[in-house]
Amino acid sequence: MKPAPRHDHIVGVDLGGTKILAAVYDAKHRLLAREKKATKPELGPAEVIGRIVETINEVLAAAALPHSAVAGLGVGVPGLIDPKGQIVRVAANLHWHDLPLAKLLTKQLRIPVTLINDVQAGTLAVRDFGTGRGLTDFVCMFIGTGIGGGVVTNGKIYRGAHGLAGEIGHMAIVPHDGPRCGCGNRGCFETVASRTAVVRRIVREMDKGRKSVVRDLCDGDASRIRSRILAEAYREGDELVREVIHDTCEYLGIGAATVINILNPQAVILGGGLIEALGDRMLPRITKAAKAHVIDPTPARVNIRDSGLGDDAGILGAAIAARAA
Amino acid sequence: MKPAPRHDHIVGVDLGGTKILAAVYDAKHRLLAREKKATKPELGPAEVIGRIVETINEVLAAAALPHSAVAGLGVGVPGLIDPKGQIVRVAANLHWHDLPLAKLLTKQLRIPVTLINDVQAGTLAVRDFGTGRGLTDFVCMFIGTGIGGGVVTNGKIYRGAHGLAGEIGHMAIVPHDGPRCGCGNRGCFETVASRTAVVRRIVREMDKGRKSVVRDLCDGDASRIRSRILAEAYREGDELVREVIHDTCEYLGIGAATVINILNPQAVILGGGLIEALGDRMLPRITKAAKAHVIDPTPARVNIRDSGLGDDAGILGAAIAARAA
Repeated sequence: MKPAPRHDHIVGVDLGGTKILAAVYDAKHRLLAREKKATKPELGPAEVIGRIVETINEVLAAAALPHSAVAGLGVGVPGLIDPKGQIVRVAANLHWHDLPLAKLLTKQLRIPVTLINDVQAGTLAVRDFGTGRGLTDFVCMFIGTGIGGGVVTNGKIYRGAHGLAGEIGHMAIVPHDGPRCGCGNRGCFETVASRTAVVRRIVREMDKGRKSVVRDLCDGDASRIRSRILAEAYREGDELVREVIHDTCEYLGIGAATVINILNPQAVILGGGLIEALGDRMLPRITKAAKAHVIDPTPARVNIRDSGLGDDAGILGAAIAARAA
Repeated sequence: MKPAPRHDHIVGVDLGGTKILAAVYDAKHRLLAREKKATKPELGPAEVIGRIVETINEVLAAAALPHSAVAGLGVGVPGLIDPKGQIVRVAANLHWHDLPLAKLLTKQLRIPVTLINDVQAGTLAVRDFGTGRGLTDFVCMFIGTGIGGGVVTNGKIYRGAHGLAGEIGHMAIVPHDGPRCGCGNRGCFETVASRTAVVRRIVREMDKGRKSVVRDLCDGDASRIRSRILAEAYREGDELVREVIHDTCEYLGIGAATVINILNPQAVILGGGLIEALGDRMLPRITKAAKAHVIDPTPARVNIRDSGLGDDAGILGAAIAARAA
């Protein structure tokens, strides 16, 4: 006879602007199942909440667990969360303002819900299960649509005066003549070093007539250019992609150096799709660029690594937050 | 009959590359006397130590106190200090390496000595007696020969992994085509926003034939251009000085914005001679520039102020360190 499932599983959800990722973990944080679904934020919060619930139902079904086996649900949200982890104050990509997401999810799922900023979730995962294990003072940089940062001091996430610490994506890296950023400013770090910036530059050059294998790899549809495609083109030796990635490594190194100069962390830990797909090629270049912009560039000072977590940082961190709540 | 002086006075020394400042404080940290003397680092450490001792003897004489009335001596040093506050590991401007300064001073003065990095001393003073009072999370930027930074988190100075946090002077602000920095890199914050950078640019423009009242104010001797002279020229409406100071405010704003984006502090607090002399004119411009490079530029987020301590931050902070030792 199978024993009844214990009531100590945790579900972690990574709510992104394009996709919802959900996973269920056992009491030892072992992954039992994962599911994903498109977010479709344009359909409004009720529809997105419905899709989150469906994804969770599917992941529990895949693990053959009833809702009653789940002690808590953590949701990583790309936005500003209230200090109690219950309300989404602002999530620009989802067009949400002051949405009581935790209450709305609990009502449908009958599971206690904790919300956490998605970048802070990723940082918790790096600290507890990634290459941040054993470190007390480090900074995470997640490179994706934008660039998010997580600052860990004395083993804890440092939030600053208003919970906004770690907005490294908006550091001015090319302040005078850099590209315009979504935030309204000019030359922010993410306008020159995010995956979006990489894709934008490659598409612009291809539009000007430059050749690249990317055009074939994405079947001529620029919206299909993902990190995997960029990595494939890079490894094939595509000249345009190599040039853009190398420039991006230079900017990532400058950004890492700024963080190192200000905080002198034990490590700067990089995550996000591009790093997962191409970290082996990018990290040595990023490190070299950082050394050129750090005072006293000893190896101990410029310690840049990848997170070791792949795509799982977000769901894992959301689960950690739910477990700690 | 006068009572015997109590044994709870503290002497604070600010050891700079050009001058030694010393002050004696009573148990309530009230200033009793101050003295200063040229450092003359070119004469070697023994001579500099002799000059520190003389300055201390003079300040105690001025306050009519015997050495036995002093419970501790704190010395702020422009360099890296060992964690116990006893040895100067490196002080580049003084050409010192691994100098057991505390022991050497105690031998001559028979007073317990605590060494502290000069910028960290200034930061302690801002926290306890300046405009950082009542704040728990802020960043100091001291603008002088270079630019030093002090990071306070949860009410304590944050030192990072190797005691090097706060090297904001070496953040890359103009990484690709900025001026070469003393550290070997290019476009560091202090190459475009320190008092040295301001003076260098004004002198270069005057050498090219541009007119400025600075030439008269310094009697044609560029080495005599101090913050006071720059402030006088600015207030007289000197076009060159106004132009350079305004550009500098732009860079200072960008640097402050970077710190704000990463750490979300309650305040960024500026100190140093230029700010003391011209803060009323510079702070509004620095704030405006910072707002243009911060995500979500609410007044609470971009809170930039002067230290309120004038020239005393260094000696006061050294005294605080000695009291705490």
